Amino acid sequence: MMIKKAEILCVGTEILIGDIVNTNAAWLSKELSALGISQYHQAVIGDNSERLAQTVKDTLNNCDLLVMTGGLGPTYDDITKETVASVLGKELVFDREIFDGIKAYFDKRDRTMTENNRKQAYVIEGSKVLKNDMGTAPGILCNTGEKIIILLPGPPSELMPMWKNYARPEIEKYCDKVFVSKNVNIVGMGEAAVASELDEMMKNSVNPTIAPYCKTGETRLRITASAKTKEEAQKMCDDVIEKIKNTKINNYIYGIDTDIAEAVVKELTKRGLKIATAESCTGGLIAKMITDVPGASAVLEGGMISYSNSVKYKALGVSSSLLDRHGPYDHRVAIQMAEGVRRLMDSDVGIGVTGLAGPGGGTAKKPVGLVYIAVCYNKKTEVMKYKFGENQSRDRIRELTAVNAFINTLNILKKGQK
Amino acid sequence: MMIKKAEILCVGTEILIGDIVNTNAAWLSKELSALGISQYHQAVIGDNSERLAQTVKDTLNNCDLLVMTGGLGPTYDDITKETVASVLGKELVFDREIFDGIKAYFDKRDRTMTENNRKQAYVIEGSKVLKNDMGTAPGILCNTGEKIIILLPGPPSELMPMWKNYARPEIEKYCDKVFVSKNVNIVGMGEAAVASELDEMMKNSVNPTIAPYCKTGETRLRITASAKTKEEAQKMCDDVIEKIKNTKINNYIYGIDTDIAEAVVKELTKRGLKIATAESCTGGLIAKMITDVPGASAVLEGGMISYSNSVKYKALGVSSSLLDRHGPYDHRVAIQMAEGVRRLMDSDVGIGVTGLAGPGGGTAKKPVGLVYIAVCYNKKTEVMKYKFGENQSRDRIRELTAVNAFINTLNILKKGQK
Repeated sequence: MMIKKAEILCVGTEILIGDIVNTNAAWLSKELSALGISQYHQAVIGDNSERLAQTVKDTLNNCDLLVMTGGLGPTYDDITKETVASVLGKELVFDREIFDGIKAYFDKRDRTMTENNRKQAYVIEGSKVLKNDMGTAPGILCNTGEKIIILLPGPPSELMPMWKNYARPEIEKYCDKVFVSKNVNIVGMGEAAVASELDEMMKNSVNPTIAPYCKTGETRLRITASAKTKEEAQKMCDDVIEKIKNTKINNYIYGIDTDIAEAVVKELTKRGLKIATAESCTGGLIAKMITDVPGASAVLEGGMISYSNSVKYKALGVSSSLLDRHGPYDHRVAIQMAEGVRRLMDSDVGIGVTGLAGPGGGTAKKPVGLVYIAVCYNKKTEVMKYKFGENQSRDRIRELTAVNAFINTLNILKKGQK
Repeated sequence: MMIKKAEILCVGTEILIGDIVNTNAAWLSKELSALGISQYHQAVIGDNSERLAQTVKDTLNNCDLLVMTGGLGPTYDDITKETVASVLGKELVFDREIFDGIKAYFDKRDRTMTENNRKQAYVIEGSKVLKNDMGTAPGILCNTGEKIIILLPGPPSELMPMWKNYARPEIEKYCDKVFVSKNVNIVGMGEAAVASELDEMMKNSVNPTIAPYCKTGETRLRITASAKTKEEAQKMCDDVIEKIKNTKINNYIYGIDTDIAEAVVKELTKRGLKIATAESCTGGLIAKMITDVPGASAVLEGGMISYSNSVKYKALGVSSSLLDRHGPYDHRVAIQMAEGVRRLMDSDVGIGVTGLAGPGGGTAKKPVGLVYIAVCYNKKTEVMKYKFGENQSRDRIRELTAVNAFINTLNILKKGQK
């Protein structure tokens, strides 16, 4: 048996009514793509056993591998295991080892196991149990000899390690090709310009494929190769990346398989520099994104969220008369924030950000979306003004601000090279 | 014709391979739920016209309203309009008004309209055009007399206003019921315990329905009622919530239709208090979550990300001998951080957080996942120790830390009541 085609079926009324965004489907899709398994269709279905049974039957006709998520919890509306068992004509059997594991999970947390947690200790007869290191619901893998069905728990923190550690290794046995993708990270050159530069190369690209796409504030090129081995596929990607580096795009590439915050952390690490941030409208997002990168402690001295004017003035030393006369949304305030936090925290680089993320507070002169970003390094401070647009959401304005703060930091670091 | 059942069908290979998380489906689901339109099934399909045509045919058999997203762009792989036209046996016709609108869109931006943008000016004969105020691809509404099919563009910034302003008003004409959902937010009582407390009530719940589910660090109960009017449905939900409040769950309810950061902002606003945060391992996440709540500026004085020991010592006044002797992962450090940032920023409440988010840096005595959270208010400082587990991811440990910081803040505020 080879696995070529998969379907993902996510179970849960909370997805259907929009309470939960289906991030599991996107995450699993990437994992399946990396194994060279195609998907033509994906579905979400509510907690209703008849409809679920019918959908499972129909879906099994169209794929070699069915990956299901959700509905493995302890309550009566968790029906995935029961429904799949009945479709396969199998019984549910009590598993003492799982039961003991669940009991230990509760004991460790000084909580009492309730009667309905016992339900989670039942598995489909003849199936393989997938261990849940992060919660109480075990996963299940059924191999009918013709098809494989995998049941995973809904919470991403349980699903992801279970897939990686226990499900994927089983699936890899049935795959004959390996897909490897690499992303080329580009800043300062738009998707259309990148595509037109690589027009000839992209038209003729079958394996590896080359696909440009947009991310907040940047352009990415995804190179995907398939081969018998991972090493071979990797080499094929690297050869294409070399060719891309021989075009004028090379001037705009800031990294491979990275993101802008990670690129800043790497650049600072390489140069042995420390950074400090002073944030107003982003409210901690910039520091949070830096600390998302493991190892950030080597480069981040610290940060200040100077939300109120009094903190800008008292803790960062922003001129109070400047704040009184011009308010906080001003390029000079951004400059004084960047320099102030660098002084306060004794770092090499300082970022200062002030602006209006909305939704309220905008005026004709200073509309929502107006943001100033200052970066200081090596006795120089640069400040940039942005108008991200009044129609943009609060989240989007904050995200664009953070990404641009990183882009400017990377630029000033490269310019400041001695 | 009444619309009772809908399906959402999202078109796009980029969703199937996991490049894009399907936020449109979640957003539209909420909109449909609010109109009392049920959904039993949702699907995603790639840019392949045969499979798309078959799926459209099959789906139309199971619903009164089919909402499709994506595939309305200018390139050759945008096939939604063409495919739906052929399934319905209709022609595509050129629409001069749309063409002029697209041309104006490009003129306004000093960009040249390309030949393939002309494709977007074709509509399905006999359909109603839905205006796109944010981009070039118009939406389409086809009413066959028995079914309604709506085609919306993929980008959320175009889809959302088009739905609200042009599609939903058309759909409302065909709805006779309204659904209202309310969420009861619970902390300190697990999903299974909540479910077992409400066992009888949940078993007999048809309208409103009662469903428990997990969120990071908390449990939620979703109450959903349908009725002729919004007011009636709301009253039905409120009656159920009253009943729930008469059980022992009441001691664990922290809000209705809120989240933990929002609940903290509300509680602070109600009491006229200001908060300041000092974060180490969370690196700005706590402040970021506070500033995610619009109106946070009324309660957040500011925050400090004291990643390095020197910032903890110099800016927050944490004892340097304490840091030297015991390192940063210590309950006394958390206390001094909370008290230090409150003093520095002159706020009423201070939060101090220190711990190991991993992946590296753990020892047998101080493992990854060890976190101390201190909150000071009203001359009292409380500190709690957490072991979130060495197997948890960095993101998860940071998220759990932030949520627990908010839970503790809420508790101390309520206890500090005079």
